[in-house]
Amino acid sequence: MKKRIAIDMDEVMADLHTSRLELYQKEFNVSISNEQLPGKKLFEIVPPEHVKRVRSYLWEEGFFRSLAVMPDAYEVILELSQSYEIFVATAAMEVPHSFREKYDWLQEHFDFIDPMNYIFCGHKYMLATDYLIDDTVLHHETFPGLGILFDALHNAGETRYPRAKNWREVPALLQSLDATAS
Amino acid sequence: MKKRIAIDMDEVMADLHTSRLELYQKEFNVSISNEQLPGKKLFEIVPPEHVKRVRSYLWEEGFFRSLAVMPDAYEVILELSQSYEIFVATAAMEVPHSFREKYDWLQEHFDFIDPMNYIFCGHKYMLATDYLIDDTVLHHETFPGLGILFDALHNAGETRYPRAKNWREVPALLQSLDATAS
Repeated sequence: MKKRIAIDMDEVMADLHTSRLELYQKEFNVSISNEQLPGKKLFEIVPPEHVKRVRSYLWEEGFFRSLAVMPDAYEVILELSQSYEIFVATAAMEVPHSFREKYDWLQEHFDFIDPMNYIFCGHKYMLATDYLIDDTVLHHETFPGLGILFDALHNAGETRYPRAKNWREVPALLQSLDATAS
Repeated sequence: MKKRIAIDMDEVMADLHTSRLELYQKEFNVSISNEQLPGKKLFEIVPPEHVKRVRSYLWEEGFFRSLAVMPDAYEVILELSQSYEIFVATAAMEVPHSFREKYDWLQEHFDFIDPMNYIFCGHKYMLATDYLIDDTVLHHETFPGLGILFDALHNAGETRYPRAKNWREVPALLQSLDATAS
């Protein structure tokens, strides 16, 4: 039986950060440098009067549908799907209007993943997969399998989990975890 | 840690069968008796020219949102939630337009279940729950935990799994499975 990998969508398969940052910079005619962001979420560094607006971008129709695919995600996940069973596990319950957009986005950009392997959920600790590739530390803290922390500005400084700086680093990381586990 | 139960929605929490049957009988002015249905799905017993229409009811806007709650489901699941962690696991990927309706239906009828515990999926064998309560034999065939087959006309005759004829039978069944497992 193939080992199973659960892969998060936002900021792992889909570039949510760049889209939100662009919307914010354009609307308020400001420039946020990436140096301001390590260890922080965007809404934590904007003026208090902008917080609500920054949070609201995710609720705009079409936001999730139009996100760009993360660099090399398609090619690497396609390659991984030869050796592993791939599940997409996205905490969609936090943004329930996004269900259909996320479904359509996956169908367009990752046509080789069967929708039967999509998981729209809240928690992720009840997934019986061997690996979880996710940018959100909260999920790693409760996931019973092996986690790979996908690099994002907001998780800078987190050292408890093997980190993939980008998709190109993932296959070798999985190989080393496979070797450790066996 | 509480043991976990994954509970299916359609024909377990929500009475899909009755709604679909009523729509069909009304539209074609026919009467289907339950004696015609054991071991069969509705589309298997209607004239060939009606099959497509019977299948299409699930795609009508509002269909999933308006389903009735199965008898005693609310009371029993509320009681079970004191001793078990409850997840709702629905194969929503087969009917992707239903995501939002299913979410809203759960919020209305099972307000004590946190949306973080909803799982909209395809397969269910990758769920790390102790129990699965489901009317679909296909899921039981691959689920690694203990399954309770929820009685439905279409699964009549299936004998491989402990069967709950209705929600009132579920607590005692779970107790006996708990005793077997420990």
